[in-house]
Amino acid sequence: MYSFRNDYSEGAHPAVLNLLQETNFVQSIGYGEDEYCLKAKELILQEMAPEKADIYFVSGGTQANMLAIAAVLRPHEAVIAAASGHICVHEAGAIEATGHKILTTVAPQGKLTAELILPLLKAHEQDHHMVKPRLVYISNSTETGTVYSAEELASLREFCQERQLLLYVDGARLGAALTAPHNNLTMADMAAYTDFFSIGGTKNGALFGEALVIKNEILKNDFIYQVKQRGALLAKGRVLGLQFLALFSEGLYYKNARHANEQALRLKEGLLKRGFRLYANSSTNQQFVIMPHSLGKRLIEEYQCELWQVTEQEMVLRFVTSWATPEQAIDELLGDLDQSGI
Amino acid sequence: MYSFRNDYSEGAHPAVLNLLQETNFVQSIGYGEDEYCLKAKELILQEMAPEKADIYFVSGGTQANMLAIAAVLRPHEAVIAAASGHICVHEAGAIEATGHKILTTVAPQGKLTAELILPLLKAHEQDHHMVKPRLVYISNSTETGTVYSAEELASLREFCQERQLLLYVDGARLGAALTAPHNNLTMADMAAYTDFFSIGGTKNGALFGEALVIKNEILKNDFIYQVKQRGALLAKGRVLGLQFLALFSEGLYYKNARHANEQALRLKEGLLKRGFRLYANSSTNQQFVIMPHSLGKRLIEEYQCELWQVTEQEMVLRFVTSWATPEQAIDELLGDLDQSGI
Amino acid sequence: MYSFRNDYSEGAHPAVLNLLQETNFVQSIGYGEDEYCLKAKELILQEMAPEKADIYFVSGGTQANMLAIAAVLRPHEAVIAAASGHICVHEAGAIEATGHKILTTVAPQGKLTAELILPLLKAHEQDHHMVKPRLVYISNSTETGTVYSAEELASLREFCQERQLLLYVDGARLGAALTAPHNNLTMADMAAYTDFFSIGGTKNGALFGEALVIKNEILKNDFIYQVKQRGALLAKGRVLGLQFLALFSEGLYYKNARHANEQALRLKEGLLKRGFRLYANSSTNQQFVIMPHSLGKRLIEEYQCELWQVTEQEMVLRFVTSWATPEQAIDELLGDLDQSGI
Amino acid sequence: MYSFRNDYSEGAHPAVLNLLQETNFVQSIGYGEDEYCLKAKELILQEMAPEKADIYFVSGGTQANMLAIAAVLRPHEAVIAAASGHICVHEAGAIEATGHKILTTVAPQGKLTAELILPLLKAHEQDHHMVKPRLVYISNSTETGTVYSAEELASLREFCQERQLLLYVDGARLGAALTAPHNNLTMADMAAYTDFFSIGGTKNGALFGEALVIKNEILKNDFIYQVKQRGALLAKGRVLGLQFLALFSEGLYYKNARHANEQALRLKEGLLKRGFRLYANSSTNQQFVIMPHSLGKRLIEEYQCELWQVTEQEMVLRFVTSWATPEQAIDELLGDLDQSGI
Repeated sequence: MYSFRNDYSEGAHPAVLNLLQETNFVQSIGYGEDEYCLKAKELILQEMAPEKADIYFVSGGTQANMLAIAAVLRPHEAVIAAASGHICVHEAGAIEATGHKILTTVAPQGKLTAELILPLLKAHEQDHHMVKPRLVYISNSTETGTVYSAEELASLREFCQERQLLLYVDGARLGAALTAPHNNLTMADMAAYTDFFSIGGTKNGALFGEALVIKNEILKNDFIYQVKQRGALLAKGRVLGLQFLALFSEGLYYKNARHANEQALRLKEGLLKRGFRLYANSSTNQQFVIMPHSLGKRLIEEYQCELWQVTEQEMVLRFVTSWATPEQAIDELLGDLDQSGI
Repeated sequence: MYSFRNDYSEGAHPAVLNLLQETNFVQSIGYGEDEYCLKAKELILQEMAPEKADIYFVSGGTQANMLAIAAVLRPHEAVIAAASGHICVHEAGAIEATGHKILTTVAPQGKLTAELILPLLKAHEQDHHMVKPRLVYISNSTETGTVYSAEELASLREFCQERQLLLYVDGARLGAALTAPHNNLTMADMAAYTDFFSIGGTKNGALFGEALVIKNEILKNDFIYQVKQRGALLAKGRVLGLQFLALFSEGLYYKNARHANEQALRLKEGLLKRGFRLYANSSTNQQFVIMPHSLGKRLIEEYQCELWQVTEQEMVLRFVTSWATPEQAIDELLGDLDQSGI
Repeated sequence: MYSFRNDYSEGAHPAVLNLLQETNFVQSIGYGEDEYCLKAKELILQEMAPEKADIYFVSGGTQANMLAIAAVLRPHEAVIAAASGHICVHEAGAIEATGHKILTTVAPQGKLTAELILPLLKAHEQDHHMVKPRLVYISNSTETGTVYSAEELASLREFCQERQLLLYVDGARLGAALTAPHNNLTMADMAAYTDFFSIGGTKNGALFGEALVIKNEILKNDFIYQVKQRGALLAKGRVLGLQFLALFSEGLYYKNARHANEQALRLKEGLLKRGFRLYANSSTNQQFVIMPHSLGKRLIEEYQCELWQVTEQEMVLRFVTSWATPEQAIDELLGDLDQSGI
Repeated sequence: MYSFRNDYSEGAHPAVLNLLQETNFVQSIGYGEDEYCLKAKELILQEMAPEKADIYFVSGGTQANMLAIAAVLRPHEAVIAAASGHICVHEAGAIEATGHKILTTVAPQGKLTAELILPLLKAHEQDHHMVKPRLVYISNSTETGTVYSAEELASLREFCQERQLLLYVDGARLGAALTAPHNNLTMADMAAYTDFFSIGGTKNGALFGEALVIKNEILKNDFIYQVKQRGALLAKGRVLGLQFLALFSEGLYYKNARHANEQALRLKEGLLKRGFRLYANSSTNQQFVIMPHSLGKRLIEEYQCELWQVTEQEMVLRFVTSWATPEQAIDELLGDLDQSGI
């Protein structure tokens, strides 16, 4: 059976591996100063025009988040995040390990808004016995698959600028967000409306790797030192550059993400048609479905989907699709449900 | 011209890439719990018998060092290292960024001994106004290509145990050390004589990746949390496991290192024959040669070797070979020197 | 008018100043190894028999908390605290600045129980993508003046031991807790039921200073290094020792606290008699009273009591008494309220 | 016998204790916002005119150093200090515990100069694999009692400004430096030629306490948050303010230091007259004398002077005087030496 556990169950998109193969014996300079990294950055920057930015390639999502957040904050400055945010829950205290508190608020559908942030700001107004909120962290798509539209991001940005807050977007699943149906958000918007953000490769066709895009001038200055200090500067930096070069050639990054979304939305539609209720209003490659215990248990075992939540009455299961998910896998899963008589 | 700048100028050994290709569409569980990681660990552990250890795969050398050192020390405990040690100079303060001081001593040929360590211990004896030395860091091979023999390592280990010091070996170039001519040190010795050590993949045929081998029981406990917290836990952990699986199958790791050493020693012999003096007594894949300025400048330009040191009279150049260095590249370099009339 | 802003508005109890005067020209050794410190520790330890502990004197409450908590935790270990806990809110992120996350739960009356802690433990069970809960932080008396009884503390202790959690009590206002009417908790209980705790001097008659009492063996080992490293080791350590010597001679510490509580409870009774409602069920030297805006504003101005909370309808004011609060100050305040016609 | 162990063996200058007594029952606001702190700051600022600065009072020297240094540096930035500097040796790794490396150079007489600093800068030029030197730390008077003149400080300042380095002076014994015979350095010079510096109270007549003087605009901004976060914000901040108020009224700070220096220099002269050699060229209240073992051992026992260094042939003893050292104590010590027949 096909596993719907996550979007990093396979290796890399073949185009990525092929480029690694083709260039394998070319010698190049280390630490990300090679031509492949430079070309990859150019391709990404083209999509952000007219905005300009510095780009760094690092190994993973937690590394990208902790590195960039710690680099821009002074010791007493804190992060604001949704309580469901990845940095709050599933990064083993990586942000706190760099010395910074995260202030959280419960956010419906995992999305922050000015209205949700305001009370945190009020509670910390000019009181040096408390931390000073300085950076807003959001993820797009969020941990439950929801997305921010261009308008929502622009509005958050405006609010942040008024309050002298920096805005960072964790884009571990940015591809899914940018290709979500009806979402008008573009890579150029991302650059226009944030201080810095990440573009996730791991969950969208790379072997590993995230791009950090940095517009903020304070953060730009000497950022490379921090990349090194946090253990994020690979000797063979080209390995990251080559992967992003493959992903941002001929729109592969978006093709991959669109495919993942499409399969997820076929699944969603199929589930709704069969009368299942959804736990989150996701338009991307993670779908959260409410199931009775008996069926849930079987699906977890057979399709390795993740148990997201459990109550006495029912379970919430997470199904994740990726660039590698065959259409047929969705068909088979839905067919299986039909035969289950549900 | 072939570049002798370093041992990470090419991609990966073809066997590594091939294994990534072959397994590319197999789905597996994330975060290093997959079968490839397990098999790779088994292969490595076989070489350490009868010693037992935990093994973790991480992305890079600085990450391996900082992660493991920070995990085992209490806040007031310090590291002892040669002043030339990689963690002291070229890791952008990564160890200090985790809160720990490094106490250094100038070490001939980059190698620590009990005699060199003793004065540091004496100076810090039972004085809580100072840090408490707790861990000895060495690199093998060292930053100048020298190696520790089995006897030297055993002796250092004994000294450390008497003084309740932990012993860590940075093995970014461990392959080179273990295959150096006349060196009797084995992987089993490494396990027997250290508390923890790293096995470098990046500089010996992997795209990227280091294995951390942990015998120390305190460090074993909960170490995986720290891997996550420092941003070192890759979602597609298999990518690291697969590489080490390839490298530790059929002795590829040693073949790679032996090849690199052989080419370096052919270069060394050729240089000595031509009357050049050496800066360090290296028996591994880094060679440090003293050159007049005019010749040095040309070689740097043409062969991209690194300028290691410079005085008014002369230069020290570093030439590095790797698993990928063709025999012919050495021949051409030596031939070039002959034609230079030196 | 007498200020009810807090319990650190005056200098020190005269006995403290007198002892500083009397001993002023005696020469003694530095850094807390003097005879006054030793005597003060003996006096405190007598009250804890048969328990044994190490005692350190430091300058302030935040320092005591951060120093002790950071010293006992490994990097991935986290603190559990009530959301209202001092370390969560009013220490400017001092705990996070040492690298540790605080997991919070909303606790009625600011008091933690096994029932409140359990869901946090469940949510973090054996998942190394999250921090590992390791230490329970409570304050006694709490931030709203409530107290833990001997039974409550013993029960929490038992729960912690079953779950391998350490228990730390922030005793910035421990005197108030131990002398609260009907509270059966003793200093010996504190030693019996915790791993470490602080005894606040600043808010109970000292110029400044807190005693850290440490039973936990891991924490004992080398703790003095950490005192130094966090900037908490005073050269003239005697200044702290002398103050605790004065406070723990002839029960002055308890007399001071009892006086503060008595005045606060006279105020409480007077307020209840006059029909005011209370915000918290405090039996100690902080009282939280609900007031209409107009009266509240006047009292804040005249008596410098703190505005604790404000809604559209009413205000919550905090009144704090201390060892220095004259009986007459309470009488005058109540008399004033009578004349206000409320 | 009078103890020459250090300058913090007694309590406080009587004027300090008296002011604490006189004001003891005045109620004031907490956390250093009281009138005594304000007045003390005004007095100190008058001596710095026309320079302006922010002033904070904290508990101790290590706290002052670590707090201020950590507040001004970004994570990858490092400190430059003499190898003998207090922060390098005797602060238990407090600076590294905040994440920053200290780069050291051996400095004759414990004093840094442009010439000594330059090689460190060169070695770290634009290489992000290393830390970035950003702050020069000096102590005045130094750890061996030597002083910087106004010209030396001005010259260091100029060098730092050219190189975009911040300059911090650890003034734990600043009084001794400013009143050293023939030293033309003034408090106004200190303000003119540094980015920030400390004024030591503990070793010059206070019970405890150091003033941090901050001119640097980056550091000024939000500094108070860091004071709180590092546990350095005393609830009864007035206790520090009152002490500095007493010390900076009627020049007491300078009188105290001058007295200490005079006694030390009487001792120095007496020692030289008797044929002893000195280890350091100190013009302040610490004197370092070379002694034969037999005499040295006796003096350590009887006068509690500190054993600074020991070789097979001889010992170096440190004698420290203070505001409290009676003239007679010097006379007796010299008389004792006469009777020893040396």
